[in-house]
Amino acid sequence: MNSETKNIKKIIINQSFNLDCGKEIRNFPLAYETYGTLNKNKNNAILAFHALTGDQFCTNINPITKREGWWTTAVGSGKAIDTDKYFVVCANVIGGCMGSYGPKEINPETNKLFGTAFPVITIKDMVRVQKFIIDYLGIKKLLAVIGGSMGGMQVLQFASLYPEMSHSAIPIACSASHSAQNIALNELGRQAIMADPNWKKENSSPDKGLAVARMAAHITYLSKKGLQEKFGRKLQDKGSLKFSFDADFEIESYLRYQGSTFVDRFDANSYLYITRAMDYFDLEKQHNGNLSLAFKDTKSKFCVISFSSDWLYPTAENKEIVIALNACGANVGFVEINSDKGHDSFLLDVPDFLKTVSEFINSSYNEVKNEKRI
Amino acid sequence: MNSETKNIKKIIINQSFNLDCGKEIRNFPLAYETYGTLNKNKNNAILAFHALTGDQFCTNINPITKREGWWTTAVGSGKAIDTDKYFVVCANVIGGCMGSYGPKEINPETNKLFGTAFPVITIKDMVRVQKFIIDYLGIKKLLAVIGGSMGGMQVLQFASLYPEMSHSAIPIACSASHSAQNIALNELGRQAIMADPNWKKENSSPDKGLAVARMAAHITYLSKKGLQEKFGRKLQDKGSLKFSFDADFEIESYLRYQGSTFVDRFDANSYLYITRAMDYFDLEKQHNGNLSLAFKDTKSKFCVISFSSDWLYPTAENKEIVIALNACGANVGFVEINSDKGHDSFLLDVPDFLKTVSEFINSSYNEVKNEKRI
Repeated sequence: MNSETKNIKKIIINQSFNLDCGKEIRNFPLAYETYGTLNKNKNNAILAFHALTGDQFCTNINPITKREGWWTTAVGSGKAIDTDKYFVVCANVIGGCMGSYGPKEINPETNKLFGTAFPVITIKDMVRVQKFIIDYLGIKKLLAVIGGSMGGMQVLQFASLYPEMSHSAIPIACSASHSAQNIALNELGRQAIMADPNWKKENSSPDKGLAVARMAAHITYLSKKGLQEKFGRKLQDKGSLKFSFDADFEIESYLRYQGSTFVDRFDANSYLYITRAMDYFDLEKQHNGNLSLAFKDTKSKFCVISFSSDWLYPTAENKEIVIALNACGANVGFVEINSDKGHDSFLLDVPDFLKTVSEFINSSYNEVKNEKRI
Repeated sequence: MNSETKNIKKIIINQSFNLDCGKEIRNFPLAYETYGTLNKNKNNAILAFHALTGDQFCTNINPITKREGWWTTAVGSGKAIDTDKYFVVCANVIGGCMGSYGPKEINPETNKLFGTAFPVITIKDMVRVQKFIIDYLGIKKLLAVIGGSMGGMQVLQFASLYPEMSHSAIPIACSASHSAQNIALNELGRQAIMADPNWKKENSSPDKGLAVARMAAHITYLSKKGLQEKFGRKLQDKGSLKFSFDADFEIESYLRYQGSTFVDRFDANSYLYITRAMDYFDLEKQHNGNLSLAFKDTKSKFCVISFSSDWLYPTAENKEIVIALNACGANVGFVEINSDKGHDSFLLDVPDFLKTVSEFINSSYNEVKNEKRI
């Protein structure tokens, strides 16, 4: 267990657990957080899955980074995912670096950090491990599973693995199998990290490589139009060009800042493992090339959400999920939200999006209460 | 002069030359190549401008890299830019690394490589320097200036600086001012290079950083659809996933290969200088925010070409050039070529594109011959 995260909430999973890679693990920690109160009927629980660089602290102040939780726009008192009404559970994925079993934890066999001795994990591994939290909390059936980007992949994987475990499912800005372009972009980030001579060295971390990886990813989270409107060709120094390689344009200093602050809060090896899990995600292949088979037993009601300017997980890829759900007769709604904010839209204050989430969850809860389902 | 390129064709510019950055240079080399024969009337010359990583060897075998020239699809005997009919001139831009004045050349003041002691240059500097080649060859008026990507920027800059120097102008897949997203992507490449501890070291080169920069750029040259069709989720090893960080997917090994072969032929500092020049390019700002003023005196006939799947220089940005040309009454045609091959389309065998270029150049030449213009 690493010292930074030793005081945060976690469960230790004592039983044997077989990872997709073939390795067996046991006695491993899963860090999680909850917000709001689980009601007496235990039917108001929402499991929120985080994206690549997220963690269990989806709202309020993250006690480790001292910064706002990654989904403060959506989760909280009176917000779209209203913690006055709902009990929100969020776990740090395995492979992550916020207390769950991952490369930043101590390997009990060597008493050193796991680093790249950590086994390669998959989205399915992440999801199966999070099932322990739900069981631990005594929740028989969730009101909803929700998440954007890699969080959305977990929603799909969860709905497929546990077709009766959630009343509704909200996959946002994601894909049922990672595209070649997205694999390429993740590989770029990994290569930036692995090119750093501090990678795999004891007592050092590949900060420069990780910062470059973050910069690359950050560009993909924003739309061309959004970048143009926010930054355009604005200069740092109002005057003229510097004729050097210092940051001349605002967009350059913005990216440098994004890169340099990221390394303070994220582990480079976690970045490798989590991007690998995303690249391996292929729900269609899990079902012999027929995505609708993934959902054939589902009892969940789906709301699939995409964003018009998201070029990382474009509407067309989200629609493939809708088509597969339709093909197996699942209950599915689909919304493309107009936004210039790109893939990042799901993390930002995009009113149409937040309203869609809020109304879908509220109507799901009304159904659950009226039918007196668990 | 660096040893690799000492036997290639170049002129030495003896006169004083003021760069945009304020520095004065003199006695500097400009490497160039020609293909075909300049006719007696000297009215069949085409100046082709290369893009970021190109050079003067646009066709045949590059004598330094031993690989095919970068525009072999378009330039050659019987090709769209037919060297049986036309005299094609192509120069290595200053800042480049194929014999022209650049960071890989010896700084006579220190007797060491320039490296980052080289002055920051602009697209305008590049174009003004290439004018010397045209004068040196005794060409009063070019039949055409042509180029894609950064080559297209040079076309625009040339047409603006020398409104009577070319009968026609063909800017391809470019923009009149670099967008925020493109500045961001270039900055990413620069940061990857500058993060490499071998950068700025004598007797070493930041190969790993440059390879990452190339990988990043390469992803942007292809379209999402093109990548999906060519690579999809195909595995290197036909069998199963390796559960490691080796290249699992074909797209990963392809990118790694692109990165590793690039460092053999390109100088990391040239990469910094040339991307900087692209980012600084803003023809609109050169004319007080009114792009049409850039072309107010032009006598050139334009053919602006974009590609439907080019997200780096999308059709909308190319159309801004057309709008500005229309606004000043210039003679301009515009074609958006349907292609799934992304920005790279201009370098590839895209028949509609090559036909467009060929027919426009041939009709321009017929006009020149019939009017007996120089």
